[in-house]
Amino acid sequence: MLDKIMKPRSVAVVGASTKQHTIGSDILKRLQEYAFCGPIYPVNPKGGVIEGLQAYPSVLDIPGDVDLAIIIVNSRFVLQTIDQCHEKGILGLCVISAGFKETGAEGARLEAELLERVRRYGMRCVGPNCLGVVNTHPGVRLDGCFAETLPERGNIGFVSQSGALGGGILNILKDLNLGFSQFISIGNQADVNAETALEYWENEADVDQILLYMESIHDPANFRRLASRISKKKPILALKAGRSAAGASAASSHTGSLAGADLAADALLRQSGVIREFSLRDLFATAKVFANCPIPKGDRVAIITNSGGPGIMATDAVCEQGMTMAQLSDDTKAKLRAFLPAAASVKNPVDMIASAPIEHYKQTMETVLADPGVDMVIVIYLPFLGLRDTDVARAVMDVKAAHPEKPIAGVFMTKNEFFSALAGTDVTVPFFMYVEEAVDGFERLNEQRRWIARPEGRIPVFDADREGAAGIMKAALAEGRAQLTTRESIDVLSAYGIRVCGSGFARTEDEAAEAAGRIGYPVVMKMTSKTTSHKTDVGGVRVNIRSEEELRAQYRDLVARLETRGLLDGLEGVIIQEMVTGTREMVCGIATDPQYGPMMMFGLGGVFIEVMKDVTFRIAPLTDQDAADMVRSVKAFKLLEGARGTKPADIARIEETLLRLSQLVADFPFVDELDINPLMISEKTGEPVAVDGRIKVRLEEARAALG
Amino acid sequence: MLDKIMKPRSVAVVGASTKQHTIGSDILKRLQEYAFCGPIYPVNPKGGVIEGLQAYPSVLDIPGDVDLAIIIVNSRFVLQTIDQCHEKGILGLCVISAGFKETGAEGARLEAELLERVRRYGMRCVGPNCLGVVNTHPGVRLDGCFAETLPERGNIGFVSQSGALGGGILNILKDLNLGFSQFISIGNQADVNAETALEYWENEADVDQILLYMESIHDPANFRRLASRISKKKPILALKAGRSAAGASAASSHTGSLAGADLAADALLRQSGVIREFSLRDLFATAKVFANCPIPKGDRVAIITNSGGPGIMATDAVCEQGMTMAQLSDDTKAKLRAFLPAAASVKNPVDMIASAPIEHYKQTMETVLADPGVDMVIVIYLPFLGLRDTDVARAVMDVKAAHPEKPIAGVFMTKNEFFSALAGTDVTVPFFMYVEEAVDGFERLNEQRRWIARPEGRIPVFDADREGAAGIMKAALAEGRAQLTTRESIDVLSAYGIRVCGSGFARTEDEAAEAAGRIGYPVVMKMTSKTTSHKTDVGGVRVNIRSEEELRAQYRDLVARLETRGLLDGLEGVIIQEMVTGTREMVCGIATDPQYGPMMMFGLGGVFIEVMKDVTFRIAPLTDQDAADMVRSVKAFKLLEGARGTKPADIARIEETLLRLSQLVADFPFVDELDINPLMISEKTGEPVAVDGRIKVRLEEARAALG
Repeated sequence: MLDKIMKPRSVAVVGASTKQHTIGSDILKRLQEYAFCGPIYPVNPKGGVIEGLQAYPSVLDIPGDVDLAIIIVNSRFVLQTIDQCHEKGILGLCVISAGFKETGAEGARLEAELLERVRRYGMRCVGPNCLGVVNTHPGVRLDGCFAETLPERGNIGFVSQSGALGGGILNILKDLNLGFSQFISIGNQADVNAETALEYWENEADVDQILLYMESIHDPANFRRLASRISKKKPILALKAGRSAAGASAASSHTGSLAGADLAADALLRQSGVIREFSLRDLFATAKVFANCPIPKGDRVAIITNSGGPGIMATDAVCEQGMTMAQLSDDTKAKLRAFLPAAASVKNPVDMIASAPIEHYKQTMETVLADPGVDMVIVIYLPFLGLRDTDVARAVMDVKAAHPEKPIAGVFMTKNEFFSALAGTDVTVPFFMYVEEAVDGFERLNEQRRWIARPEGRIPVFDADREGAAGIMKAALAEGRAQLTTRESIDVLSAYGIRVCGSGFARTEDEAAEAAGRIGYPVVMKMTSKTTSHKTDVGGVRVNIRSEEELRAQYRDLVARLETRGLLDGLEGVIIQEMVTGTREMVCGIATDPQYGPMMMFGLGGVFIEVMKDVTFRIAPLTDQDAADMVRSVKAFKLLEGARGTKPADIARIEETLLRLSQLVADFPFVDELDINPLMISEKTGEPVAVDGRIKVRLEEARAALG
Repeated sequence: MLDKIMKPRSVAVVGASTKQHTIGSDILKRLQEYAFCGPIYPVNPKGGVIEGLQAYPSVLDIPGDVDLAIIIVNSRFVLQTIDQCHEKGILGLCVISAGFKETGAEGARLEAELLERVRRYGMRCVGPNCLGVVNTHPGVRLDGCFAETLPERGNIGFVSQSGALGGGILNILKDLNLGFSQFISIGNQADVNAETALEYWENEADVDQILLYMESIHDPANFRRLASRISKKKPILALKAGRSAAGASAASSHTGSLAGADLAADALLRQSGVIREFSLRDLFATAKVFANCPIPKGDRVAIITNSGGPGIMATDAVCEQGMTMAQLSDDTKAKLRAFLPAAASVKNPVDMIASAPIEHYKQTMETVLADPGVDMVIVIYLPFLGLRDTDVARAVMDVKAAHPEKPIAGVFMTKNEFFSALAGTDVTVPFFMYVEEAVDGFERLNEQRRWIARPEGRIPVFDADREGAAGIMKAALAEGRAQLTTRESIDVLSAYGIRVCGSGFARTEDEAAEAAGRIGYPVVMKMTSKTTSHKTDVGGVRVNIRSEEELRAQYRDLVARLETRGLLDGLEGVIIQEMVTGTREMVCGIATDPQYGPMMMFGLGGVFIEVMKDVTFRIAPLTDQDAADMVRSVKAFKLLEGARGTKPADIARIEETLLRLSQLVADFPFVDELDINPLMISEKTGEPVAVDGRIKVRLEEARAALG
């Protein structure tokens, strides 16, 4: 797919230059310095010799076949260069030149023409406005990138949307001893984007983990489809910048006002099994752990230290990350006790005391790793007189080699020199300066373990009265309304099998009794009148009616009172409503993100929505797993489980409600906002009941769809 | 106070040794290497010459005066050494020897004897079981510490409770270019502890900021008194480890079960104006910012960058930290536009584009710093061909020198070599690798700014019926009850002027009408009977009684119903209660931490307490500022302000409630638990009303206090 670009057998550098410290000179130097495995053809109108290589006036003059053209010419010459590349039979492009979409409308037009040609010629293209591409495979050795630093060999596939940043990152990776196999600076991502890279790397043996720096996601649905599949095979770590840029959404619903671009991105990454980091520092720390550790069997962490303080701090961090401090077996403790000094502590964290020699490090690690109750081990070293930190590190790596099945991390609170000394050597254990870095990394391993174990979600299909719902919406559209009435909204929900508050209309006592019998007691009775709007003031609302006898008595009393006051004339009848009582008011709904499309929302409703913001979002469509995750990811889940003596809520039915809403918006993609607030948890039955609902559609789109 | 230890004119090393790689040898070497300004006297029973210095068999043989004795002998010889030091007239001790409290009961006894001698002899003592002390002042140059690294000169006073960790930290500080002026490894803190150091450094010109690594706080009340005063003059940064160790509290009340040692420590540090960090990494990053930046005038941050990506990430971080992105003035933008290239962005973040030369860095910084709408500036540099990062850094420092009044931080996403190159040079700007580190540091500056601006709190004294409350408690004690009844609890609260739900007892219809008239309608009427416990089942609870007429009717109806059922005999009478209606249920109370004493709690009550944990704690006694902070630091404060059309709560009255509770527990320190749950916010008046209360005392202590 991207082989012509990432594994080229030959490279042309169009815009190669003899002028020092220009990209046209640097790229060529990098290609040579890194010893590219195939021929390199500089292209320059003047021809001649550049960096010792024969240069050609145009790609058409190159004698051999060319897989990849790296293009550095001024943007106004890019299109004709692509035409010549096509004529030459080149299928891979990497356009480093800037001056496209990023400069405004004119550049955007140029970029559109570029893309049109790439498509028409059957090429693939990285860029424009990018830093280049790298492949460190010994059979390729392509450094087609103008970063300061030569690439370090490793197992990471890395995509960066920011050019300059990509260069900075390459420097840092090298210092962190983090090598990579392939690097793509996607720039303006006219053709190749993060999704292309994901798909390309899915079955690439050389790539064991994928790192993404993103400012936007090109096609969220496609990203989700690919990432959720690939993340089960290889960890995908992402830094998504631009979290705060979204600003307040103008939507009027609760669902809308609580959403926002970052919530959508966050939901998408979560549903895709992508491990999200919020700073480059954390991104790289996590990558270091994945590069050197297997996925653990569980979350039980053992800590081995020669100093109490860091042991305490590591314990704090393990607990705060929600992992488990391993309980060492009596057998393990006895074995440790047999060789550690009396002042040592053989409980987890195991404190070997300051003077622990290397032999104690080895033996303690061996003993703790052999304990079946231990899934991961953190080894802490603080400098002690006469010991060399690099010797201790070597011992840790030796033990690790014999125990490849359990993650091991080292925390060496020593001089920077130690880390510099490691750089360039064959390091097989992630070493950090601070305990929290190791613990955070382990928590990500644990996250990946849970994601792998998570069943494949499926999108269930429920029976629904799609035609009925469409009819209701059409009626509103016919009146020019984008906003459905409460009644219409409730009816649409009901058509989709969502349990709504039962109600009926009655004009007589017998009809009222019949409606109440159908709905089931207790009920609420509300008069509806053309002349009396303040129902409550005239006793027109009767709550908690428990029997037909009571209902008939109340009905007669109501009529009598109205008659006394001369208000009977306007009475149209009464609405009989199911009386749903409960203290747990939830909220769910749909919001539409301009980029990510419809999003589902669930959480704590009532007066607490804005204050507590105990809500969670997922991108539609929902799988059953997504729905299950949603319900369990709000704090209020404890209330649903039946905290403090309340009846447990019907969780399955809540999940179904979310899934049915997801189906609704899949059927009617022009639904812009939908709120069920409250979704009351019935105290009697525990089931979720939509007591109030509102739906808003996008008028033009709805009209086009419903005809 | 600690001058004899921290600024000694002469030092004896008792236990000096000729044996290499022992503490007795290393300490002596360090003292010499670091060129201690006074005479050094090795003490060794064998005498002779050690490290080129004349050794003496005992301190008594030393010819000159000795200020400080550093003691390294085996713990069993420490007491006699101290006796000899006393005889010699030595007043400063630093006991490095281990084998005291940390080893068990025997060692604890030895430590008690040590302390007794220190007190009796009028000495001060650091340790035992510590790493030593350091003072980098050129007039002292004391390195009485066996860390690997020689100390770096700077303006930090640093206290470490962990010896080995302290050593590791000294290494790291040096790498971070973070120098310090004084370092005390307090070890077992038999005499000198963090509080002693705080007090000593309060007026020490050489110490500009104080760093604490703590696992416990010796005397929380004293710590608070000192730290809250000193933190207004010098920032105090603390890492308190052992957060998770506390485990679940066994207390039965909500207040108790939500508390726990770390909540107490967190509250104490907050009330003391101490900036709390949760990892050493963050502690040092913050220290670096304080070491090189003034306190800003506001929270408006401007970002200057040569790459878009890091600018976006910095913007994200600024927003997430709750700070403000500075709005550059039109004037500033015009000035920037005048020299920056067309592709540059002159809005904040200012993107000078990748090729920005040093001159643009300087001019942009000058222009942005001159904008009165900017309080702090972050300068980001990503490597660009032909520029040297150290040259850019030098330019940033040059501009900073001309603008000492505004904090400036640098983020240089470049090679580690850059940071190594900085180490040892005179760096005046905090440089970081990642944007989040600079932003976090600025947020701490901002926190310190707010703390300095926060008015001194006062502890108000309210009129309260202390005798009345004592009488109620005594009555419970007389019956052997630690737990007060609801009635008693409510009466105690009432005696302390806390607005409780009004109620009265009545035996007749007239008494009931009289009580209701006194309380004010609407009221609730509840029967109280010796024979009928299920009041509700027999219609014994009548709510929302709105008038005397209705009350009398309901009373008669109640009596009639009981008569019909033959239940009248057991009737004692009725309780008339004020009917407090409201949807906002708060909670407040007192919990007792075994180490920190009484703590005040406030937050969202009702079914949400455990689920939302939207509660906050402060150590008693509360100042008016503490009470104001408490009410404003829970999310539910928005509900109190009157979100969504509810009446604003009487905030002043809520604060007063907390302050009155604080006074109550100051008067009766044996109150172990106190809950007001709910503290209902009256929908009608907005005032907080204690609807239910429970108080539990510590029986023995209460009896002793109340006689």
